Amino acid sequence: MRDIALTPSKTNDAESETPRLNRRQAAKVRTRQKVLDAARTLFAERGYEPATIRDIAKGAGMSTGAVFANFQDKAELFEAVLSEDLAKLAETLKTAAAAETSLRARLLAALTAGYHSSLEQLPLVQAVVARSWFQPVAAEMRTRTAIKPLVMVVSDALQAGVREGELRQDADVRLLSELIYEAFLSNYRRAAYDGWTMQQLTTQIGKQIDVILAGQISRQ
Amino acid sequence: MRDIALTPSKTNDAESETPRLNRRQAAKVRTRQKVLDAARTLFAERGYEPATIRDIAKGAGMSTGAVFANFQDKAELFEAVLSEDLAKLAETLKTAAAAETSLRARLLAALTAGYHSSLEQLPLVQAVVARSWFQPVAAEMRTRTAIKPLVMVVSDALQAGVREGELRQDADVRLLSELIYEAFLSNYRRAAYDGWTMQQLTTQIGKQIDVILAGQISRQ
Repeated sequence: MRDIALTPSKTNDAESETPRLNRRQAAKVRTRQKVLDAARTLFAERGYEPATIRDIAKGAGMSTGAVFANFQDKAELFEAVLSEDLAKLAETLKTAAAAETSLRARLLAALTAGYHSSLEQLPLVQAVVARSWFQPVAAEMRTRTAIKPLVMVVSDALQAGVREGELRQDADVRLLSELIYEAFLSNYRRAAYDGWTMQQLTTQIGKQIDVILAGQISRQ
Repeated sequence: MRDIALTPSKTNDAESETPRLNRRQAAKVRTRQKVLDAARTLFAERGYEPATIRDIAKGAGMSTGAVFANFQDKAELFEAVLSEDLAKLAETLKTAAAAETSLRARLLAALTAGYHSSLEQLPLVQAVVARSWFQPVAAEMRTRTAIKPLVMVVSDALQAGVREGELRQDADVRLLSELIYEAFLSNYRRAAYDGWTMQQLTTQIGKQIDVILAGQISRQ
C-alpha cells in the first residue's frame, strides 16, 4: 500500500481496474499531502518530540491508521516535510541572491532571507539540527541531500565571486561554503536561547561573512 | 537527602551526630562518584537515549533507588558527567596549547588534542551537541558555562596572538573564537557519519583555522 502512495506515477500495476486505481491513487496523493500539511503545522509549533501521530492525524481530520498507511513512522513523515520545506527555502535563497550584484550582498541577502523564512518555525529548525547529530547514517545521507540546495546557493555565489574576480582564483570554495553555512546555522542557537531578532542575526552573519572572506578578497 | 549529597562540605547541619553524618556524607560522595563513573562509561558507549538508569545502576553495582537518591533524573546525571568531562578536556587543550609558540600551532595543537581525547566517546559528543539544540533555556545556560573553558583556550590563544603582534590589533577575538569553535565542532559530524580519522580531522581544522585567520594576520 505504502509503495503505491509513494510512487503515484507507477502505472503497470498487477491489478486490472486502472481507472478505479487511478482515482484511488489520486485520493492517496491528496491524503498524503493533507498529512504532510498537518504534520508541518504541528512540527513547526511544537518541534519534533512533542508532535504525536495522534495529533497530526487529528489535524488532518483522519485516523492514525490513515496516517500510518502513508508513512511508516514519525521519522519518515518528518523527513518528507523537511525535504519539501528545504526545497522551497533554497528557492527563496536563490531569488534573494539573484537580486544582488556583489558577492557580499548576494550572500547576505540569501542568508537573511533564510532566517526570515524560518524564524517563525524555530522549534522545527532546532529539531532538524538536533536530529542531524544523532541519526542513522542512511538518514544523515538523506538529510545532506535535502540540505544540499541551500549550501549550493552559497557555493554558487562564491563561484561567481571567483569568476568575476572578486575572490582570489585559488579560493577553496567548498571549505568557504561549509564555514559560512555552519556560521549561518550556529546563529539559530542565539535566536532560540537568547531571543535574537532578525536585525541581530543579520548583523552577526554579515560580520561572519566578512571575517571568513577577509583573506580571500582578490587584490588586483 | 539530595541536597546533602550535592553539598558535602555543608557542616552546620541541624542534626547533632556530626561524626556519623560525616561518615554518611563521605559514603554519599563515594556513591555519587560511582554512579557518575558508571554513567560516563554507558553514555560513552551508547550515547544518551539508549543508556538507561537501570543499566547505569547495574554498572555501579547498586539499585536504581540509590541512583535516584543522588540524581533527580538522567538529564541531571548527564549534565554532571558532562561538566566533569569538559573541565578535564579544557585542561588537556590548555596544556597542548602551552607547548607551542606560534598562534597557528597553539590552536592546532589544542584542537587536535581535543579530538584525540574525545574521539573514542563519539556517541557522547553527538548526544551533547544534539541536546544543545533542544533543551530548556536553563539547561542551555549550564551547558554554556561547562563549555566556556574550551572556548577560552581558543580565545586566550587569539588574545596572545594580538598581544604578540601576530594578529591585527583590531581583530574581533570573540567572533573569531566562536567561528573556530563552531568549525571544530562541525567536524565531529564527519567523524560520526563519514568515519573521518584523526589525520583527516587535523587536516580539516588546520585548513579552517588558516581560512578564518587569513584576513586577520598582522602585516608589519
